[in-house]
Amino acid sequence: MRNEDRCRISGYRYEKMLKIKDLGEFGFINRLNPKETVTGLKLGIGDDAAVISPPEGFDLVITTDMLMEGKHFLSDTNPYAIGYRSMCANLSDIAAMGAIPKFYFISLGIDPERDFDYVENIYNGLNSLALQFNTHLAGGDTIKSEKTVLSITLIGYVEKSMAIKREGKIEAKDLIVYIGPLGYSGAGLEVIKNKIDGFDEQVEAFLYPYPQVIAGRILLQSKVVRVMMDNSDGLSNCIENLVIKNGFGALLFEKQIFDERLDAIAEATNKDYLDFVFNGGEDFGLVAVVEKDGFLDLTYFLERALFDSKVKVIGEVIEGEKIVLKRLNDSFLVIEKSGYVQF
Amino acid sequence: MRNEDRCRISGYRYEKMLKIKDLGEFGFINRLNPKETVTGLKLGIGDDAAVISPPEGFDLVITTDMLMEGKHFLSDTNPYAIGYRSMCANLSDIAAMGAIPKFYFISLGIDPERDFDYVENIYNGLNSLALQFNTHLAGGDTIKSEKTVLSITLIGYVEKSMAIKREGKIEAKDLIVYIGPLGYSGAGLEVIKNKIDGFDEQVEAFLYPYPQVIAGRILLQSKVVRVMMDNSDGLSNCIENLVIKNGFGALLFEKQIFDERLDAIAEATNKDYLDFVFNGGEDFGLVAVVEKDGFLDLTYFLERALFDSKVKVIGEVIEGEKIVLKRLNDSFLVIEKSGYVQF
Repeated sequence: MRNEDRCRISGYRYEKMLKIKDLGEFGFINRLNPKETVTGLKLGIGDDAAVISPPEGFDLVITTDMLMEGKHFLSDTNPYAIGYRSMCANLSDIAAMGAIPKFYFISLGIDPERDFDYVENIYNGLNSLALQFNTHLAGGDTIKSEKTVLSITLIGYVEKSMAIKREGKIEAKDLIVYIGPLGYSGAGLEVIKNKIDGFDEQVEAFLYPYPQVIAGRILLQSKVVRVMMDNSDGLSNCIENLVIKNGFGALLFEKQIFDERLDAIAEATNKDYLDFVFNGGEDFGLVAVVEKDGFLDLTYFLERALFDSKVKVIGEVIEGEKIVLKRLNDSFLVIEKSGYVQF
Repeated sequence: MRNEDRCRISGYRYEKMLKIKDLGEFGFINRLNPKETVTGLKLGIGDDAAVISPPEGFDLVITTDMLMEGKHFLSDTNPYAIGYRSMCANLSDIAAMGAIPKFYFISLGIDPERDFDYVENIYNGLNSLALQFNTHLAGGDTIKSEKTVLSITLIGYVEKSMAIKREGKIEAKDLIVYIGPLGYSGAGLEVIKNKIDGFDEQVEAFLYPYPQVIAGRILLQSKVVRVMMDNSDGLSNCIENLVIKNGFGALLFEKQIFDERLDAIAEATNKDYLDFVFNGGEDFGLVAVVEKDGFLDLTYFLERALFDSKVKVIGEVIEGEKIVLKRLNDSFLVIEKSGYVQF
């Protein structure tokens, strides 16, 4: 290979047109292997297994997520976005437990005819988010595959027995709170599909969602959160899991949920903005049930840490296992899996 | 569904002809969720992430391995064998560190048109090996995929700073030892391909290899092992990694490697039995470099634990970075990646 065929992109020097198949398994994985020392990582890529030294007094939190070409992305989807999104889903799961993300493992199936920069861009996408949270690659496996398939396993730490679960004891009058954009991801997808101008924030929320890792840590430290999960499948699913399955119902307030921008997108695409909110998902916000008396503590904690309380009280826990939305006009709407029932 | 359509296989009651698509993601994963309490597993399948409580004084050992239809197995391969083999590869990686396997996570891409018992049989195959080593399912992700793809992440524990690596300080006169069948897997594949009768042990070694988890623990406890790895890519690759890369060479003894059964299979299939040994791999035995003075301790440990020393001294470390085989007729053969050089 001649020297002029080499170039430098994002800190790496690599050979132009280098194919995956030119590298072999070991060459390939060694190229992704970060050489710097990472605290707690005793042995990274290159041995039979990775060795990690967990701090004492902490539990481990582990999540795994798989993405596949043709289902979650297309053959020509920007590989950076594939990596970014995959890491976001995993970080969001860790955030939803109130935990600290730490190490990730990649299993990657890839066509050996792909250029090496395709893989490198997946990795750059993964790392662009991971490194923001001091989270590092610790191992992986790569195989040949016609379609790209990516499975990430992420390991984090949480103070012993402090992980925030979905299942738990809640009470009537508890507050239902939300942190992050709500319904923006689904709306952003419609903006892209319908080529509408002027909704950059929603498009950004769809393309590059942000995991609420810091907020998750603050929610855990506030000690007033009873149950929590991330909004990856829509708000209905979250309320179902956190409230209904724990034996109560939810009264939600539209005035806290309503968003003019969402409504405008809904109108332009002949939809109901509530669909984005309740069935959209992929927002990766956090939904939590919080002790009513503790809510002020929570906003204080959040404001001190993020210079912005960011948290919205979207409803409260009620007796009776149903989800009711109090509309802007003070009428009520029952939210069901199959749709809405006006009454 | 009528009652007579139900049947009971391997302890499960399930509906005949039930498709993956009939279950949905949650129904599907809940069916695999073992309901019994597992020590150290605080939260299993069903939340955003699993929570594990690691014992103090231990490091974590983590490995991940991906298998794909079309590459590692065929569309009609027995799903039990797919699960079994995948678990074996992961357990073997943990064994190669001298660690204790503990929890596994599945990422599974599967065609929703498949019958549910296909997945259940993958899971039964995984568990048939995992449960032998007190290793339990702790989480997973399932997606739709035309081709079956399976990624397993396995987490184990090892006494702090005691994990046995590939890279390390070795010395001339150290012994090179092997535990497990050597070359049997590759030979077994030839037996199947060529439909030869009478080599059940080799066929078994190919179809249902056994991970050397117990031996790995004993090797660690003996404290005389310098470096170790598992034989998943053939003996040449192991010696390359454990000896050559650590700055020495290896003198191997054919009289310790030669096996009449392998030789018979080689003859029947017009091959050299040394190919099975050096380039076969997939045997999942353990290769280790051991202090010469400590070897007796090691055999004592192994005999006490397994009622069989099982360990073979196949060679010794020499100066000079090459691999030499002392043949049965006392001639020498240099083993190279590209082949053999007689001298």
